[in-house]
Amino acid sequence: MEASLVIGMAQMEVFPGDPARNGARMLEMIASARGKGVDLLVFPEMCVPGYLIGDMWERPAFLRECETWNQRIVAATDAVDAAGAVAAGGARPMAAVFGTVIPDWKAKGEDGRPRKYNGYIAAMNGRAIRHPGLGRDYGIKTLLPNYREFDEPRHFHDARKLAMELDKPLEDLLEPVPIPLNGKLCRAGIILCEDAWEEDYAQKPLEILGLKSCDFMLNLSCSPFTQGKNDKRNRVFSRKAKALGRPVFYVNCISLQNNGKTLFTFDGRSTAYGSDGTVAAEMPAYAQDMLPVQVEWRKGRPMLAKPAGAAVPDPVEDMPARRIREIYQALRYGARGFLASIGQDRVVIGVSGGVDSAVAAAFYRDILPPQNLMLVNMPSRFNSGTTRNLSKVLAGNLGCLYAEIDIEASLAVTKSQLDGLEIRSPDGSLRASISMAGFVMENVQARDRSSRLLAALAASFGGVFTCNANKAEITVGYSTLYGDLGGYLALLGDLWKSEVYALGRYLNAEVFRREVIPEGVFTIVPSAELSDTQAVDEGKGDPLVYPYHDKLFFAWVQRWNRATPEEILDWYADGSLTANLGLEEGVDLKSVFPTHAAFIRDLERWWNLYSGIAVAKRVQAPPILAVSSRAFGFDHREAMGPAFYSARYRALRSELLKNSGGGFGA
Amino acid sequence: MEASLVIGMAQMEVFPGDPARNGARMLEMIASARGKGVDLLVFPEMCVPGYLIGDMWERPAFLRECETWNQRIVAATDAVDAAGAVAAGGARPMAAVFGTVIPDWKAKGEDGRPRKYNGYIAAMNGRAIRHPGLGRDYGIKTLLPNYREFDEPRHFHDARKLAMELDKPLEDLLEPVPIPLNGKLCRAGIILCEDAWEEDYAQKPLEILGLKSCDFMLNLSCSPFTQGKNDKRNRVFSRKAKALGRPVFYVNCISLQNNGKTLFTFDGRSTAYGSDGTVAAEMPAYAQDMLPVQVEWRKGRPMLAKPAGAAVPDPVEDMPARRIREIYQALRYGARGFLASIGQDRVVIGVSGGVDSAVAAAFYRDILPPQNLMLVNMPSRFNSGTTRNLSKVLAGNLGCLYAEIDIEASLAVTKSQLDGLEIRSPDGSLRASISMAGFVMENVQARDRSSRLLAALAASFGGVFTCNANKAEITVGYSTLYGDLGGYLALLGDLWKSEVYALGRYLNAEVFRREVIPEGVFTIVPSAELSDTQAVDEGKGDPLVYPYHDKLFFAWVQRWNRATPEEILDWYADGSLTANLGLEEGVDLKSVFPTHAAFIRDLERWWNLYSGIAVAKRVQAPPILAVSSRAFGFDHREAMGPAFYSARYRALRSELLKNSGGGFGA
Repeated sequence: MEASLVIGMAQMEVFPGDPARNGARMLEMIASARGKGVDLLVFPEMCVPGYLIGDMWERPAFLRECETWNQRIVAATDAVDAAGAVAAGGARPMAAVFGTVIPDWKAKGEDGRPRKYNGYIAAMNGRAIRHPGLGRDYGIKTLLPNYREFDEPRHFHDARKLAMELDKPLEDLLEPVPIPLNGKLCRAGIILCEDAWEEDYAQKPLEILGLKSCDFMLNLSCSPFTQGKNDKRNRVFSRKAKALGRPVFYVNCISLQNNGKTLFTFDGRSTAYGSDGTVAAEMPAYAQDMLPVQVEWRKGRPMLAKPAGAAVPDPVEDMPARRIREIYQALRYGARGFLASIGQDRVVIGVSGGVDSAVAAAFYRDILPPQNLMLVNMPSRFNSGTTRNLSKVLAGNLGCLYAEIDIEASLAVTKSQLDGLEIRSPDGSLRASISMAGFVMENVQARDRSSRLLAALAASFGGVFTCNANKAEITVGYSTLYGDLGGYLALLGDLWKSEVYALGRYLNAEVFRREVIPEGVFTIVPSAELSDTQAVDEGKGDPLVYPYHDKLFFAWVQRWNRATPEEILDWYADGSLTANLGLEEGVDLKSVFPTHAAFIRDLERWWNLYSGIAVAKRVQAPPILAVSSRAFGFDHREAMGPAFYSARYRALRSELLKNSGGGFGA
Repeated sequence: MEASLVIGMAQMEVFPGDPARNGARMLEMIASARGKGVDLLVFPEMCVPGYLIGDMWERPAFLRECETWNQRIVAATDAVDAAGAVAAGGARPMAAVFGTVIPDWKAKGEDGRPRKYNGYIAAMNGRAIRHPGLGRDYGIKTLLPNYREFDEPRHFHDARKLAMELDKPLEDLLEPVPIPLNGKLCRAGIILCEDAWEEDYAQKPLEILGLKSCDFMLNLSCSPFTQGKNDKRNRVFSRKAKALGRPVFYVNCISLQNNGKTLFTFDGRSTAYGSDGTVAAEMPAYAQDMLPVQVEWRKGRPMLAKPAGAAVPDPVEDMPARRIREIYQALRYGARGFLASIGQDRVVIGVSGGVDSAVAAAFYRDILPPQNLMLVNMPSRFNSGTTRNLSKVLAGNLGCLYAEIDIEASLAVTKSQLDGLEIRSPDGSLRASISMAGFVMENVQARDRSSRLLAALAASFGGVFTCNANKAEITVGYSTLYGDLGGYLALLGDLWKSEVYALGRYLNAEVFRREVIPEGVFTIVPSAELSDTQAVDEGKGDPLVYPYHDKLFFAWVQRWNRATPEEILDWYADGSLTANLGLEEGVDLKSVFPTHAAFIRDLERWWNLYSGIAVAKRVQAPPILAVSSRAFGFDHREAMGPAFYSARYRALRSELLKNSGGGFGA
């Protein structure tokens, strides 16, 4: 029989900015793996410092603390401590590889501060193994992602810059690391996260390492959840494992990290790929665990044995259902983690009888005991008996605290104080008289609910209140600042309206397995109920036709080739709008937009809002829990500025308006 | 006599995201310069698209529009148009160099999108001049800044990456551009902004170009104002001009640009440096203009003639006064520009009688007519006659609209609705009773003022309301979310409390030249007046001792080697705190912190707030107008997370607390 070895995938939970907590956990996992026959324990990228920690990297005290932990973890790979005592798991040698920040105090980064690498350390017998390419006690990352929420070059130096500086080819810096494992000196190809996503880069670290006869590849990752990313990753890594003819171990952390405005969950799902490209083992989402995977040499080639207890692939599940399940998992892990991180366990939700607040309420009931959840319905004269009743039924179904607090008395105070008020300069020479228009009173209602009642209630209850705005509303600022746009977290802020509905259905069908969200919530017309023009019982509601506007806004925000009115009008004019936006069948644009003018008016209305006041609102909006391929905030970056219309758009628009007919009607 | 030529520095005002507006202005400036005998007109960096425009770079339609304008500007360098008509300024040949985005549709950026360069085009006779290093019709930037608010590698490819990709030395790509100017073929060394700030980079574009015998250097910049940066720039560029022995032209735009949360002003101050390093001409701050500078060849070397009308250096002005003047200029340009960009010209300010709102009021009166400015004092029972009177006197001095609106009636409604409220689950099985603690009522007052009154008043008045929070308050979240932290812009959000006082003094002395801000505003104790414990007439106020806390927070936020409690406690323990924080003489820490325990308690209180709830508040705070070397928002990036205390801090703390004495007292 040829040699074999066991690689342990340490899918640990990482707490950003807390090296002491992460380091202590790593020491535990090392001790525990030692008792399980692991030869090489592989941790994720940046598991000591965490990853999304803003500009914390600029604090020397933080870097020194990380260095101390790096050293402790290296020391912990010695089965026999300084006093000669054998570690708990026994004296069997075990190596560990972990991703961490590597400060290089003698060198400068391009920001003029002490240089830092996103690097890894391979250690054994209490010592770091010398990296043959770098000649240092660590390896470093080559490709630093710099898109979406990723900002790595802001803080880290990379192997490409180092190669230029040393005037060496990059190839010289990338070498497999020799590690003696169970009696055989293995050559481990070690890369960090983006290094494997090399398609868009001129330099390809995995390819370079692949030419240097590695025995296996380790990809240490810190990779956030995004819808569909897991499938893409499986395709990419499978192909690479097959091309290399070597096993590839993808080790990702689980974590909740943020960059202030946007929260990201890291879903783990660490995976071992066989040298034929098949998935030999996949670890579960959002669960900390260690999975030992056996590698056997057969005819000198490393092969994966199917490990005992490997995850069985999901039974065939249709895509939309799986998508909503994954969103639910991300929101669940994220919201629980966020509440824990801010030391809160009580939540107040303003419930309107509409779908967004109802879905939020059911969701929080799933993660909180009923006595920690308070639903509050706050009607004015414009709220229907229908929605008030739906709110109460919802609270009854969830069994949580419920209050109904009328806001008419407070609205009356505001109106009496301001409407008709004469304001002068102290010398009486200037005058202005205030009168409150209808839209002003609409926003007064929204702010009265959130800033006056919910904020005070939450503080008195010892908790937080939620923002229930969805992504379509946030896109165009269809919500009131300091009103329904207030709250500690916009849980649904990265879900399109259709996804909110789907999540609600999922909560009823799969989580509670009964109708906690009343059916009427799904069927009622979406409405803000802030004026007579939004009376739900008369079928009146939001100006957004969600099946269309969800997709229109998606094209602006999330589409890879991000659309502007120019593309939209192009598609409209050439009849490809439905196909290009991916509209569902049955969306009757003909009746919504009877004329070209109506279509253009709607397009410009929302584009102006999206580019204008909605940006200003997003600047002051609550943090958003990201689940999409482009979440508002640190992922979808934007400036306040004019709405952009290209010359080509203006020409197309003039052309269409010459013709008074309708694009869909004609 | 040897040859001479005139270089025109086109210090244009750039509107980010608006290539049509910028392009049209460039065409005008080209026509105008032609009539003024200019041989080479130099525009700033990125003057076609603008610079801080978020992820707008990902929109192909925007890039195409910029390309169209690039082509039009090139075409405009032809003095004779296609129809054979001579341009307005005459048929004299004139070259132009301008910074712009250069899309390369056939190549990919590292984000997988169409590649973009931060580049420049040199054009003459309606054609772009071929770049000898690149062999293309444009040159590109080598060093892309990636610190503070700068995010360039996120969107742009640079000359270093291109050199690696082409497998050529960077030196081959950097070549002077040959331009025939007034009968002589000149070699223009052209670089973009950061390319001249090469100290922290291994590759030095200015140095490389300097070895290639350029006749002069052009630095096309898009460089935001930061306190003291102008002096530093003069030092750096003087030294470089002298070392090269060639004139250097620094051409910067004027502009207001933002990245959502943070607004930056670009102050112009384009400068021509003689080959001896002296400043031959400096253009004024925040003014659009074109300055022609004559270059004469003497003994084959280009020399600057002192241009007629060149700015005379400021008379000797003491540094603090100059610093405040520059802050005032930046705020003035920034606030005016921001109001214009959002189409607003009416402002409502909640005035408390304290210094922040009074300074804001005087500032806005300086940029708005009195009938467009409304001051509102909103007392509760806790507001003193002193501050109410100061507010009214202030309004009288400014001659603007003034209202006093009591908030007791509304507070009473809120208290009666919530305090003592019993909340149950619909089936009655769960109960919670609400009682409103003192701190809850404090925040209720603040939110009542901003979210209820000011928001409704501003909307009815047809304007916006302001956030008057200063940087010390914002650092530790000493302000109420949806309360005094609400508003369209935090004008003073990047000014420490001492700077707010200084700005107030400056407004009285230098802008209004009379006491518009009453003296009592400067001398009263700073206080929120939200409870009996904050009664100003009893000398009670904020828990912040500004002369100390301003400097403490500065060390955390703005100090180059950013401090944490570890450094602070180190300095405290070794007696160097006063020196390291730069405390003014007369700050009596001994009486504020009689014991080690008191010092540590205060330190941890504010550090916990700064790292914790204050981050959450900043996520939802208004945009801030940046004037410092580190402004909250897109410049000072941060994550919500635990307050970081290093192991060394904990050890030091234990050591100090063993000794019950005081660090300053002992």
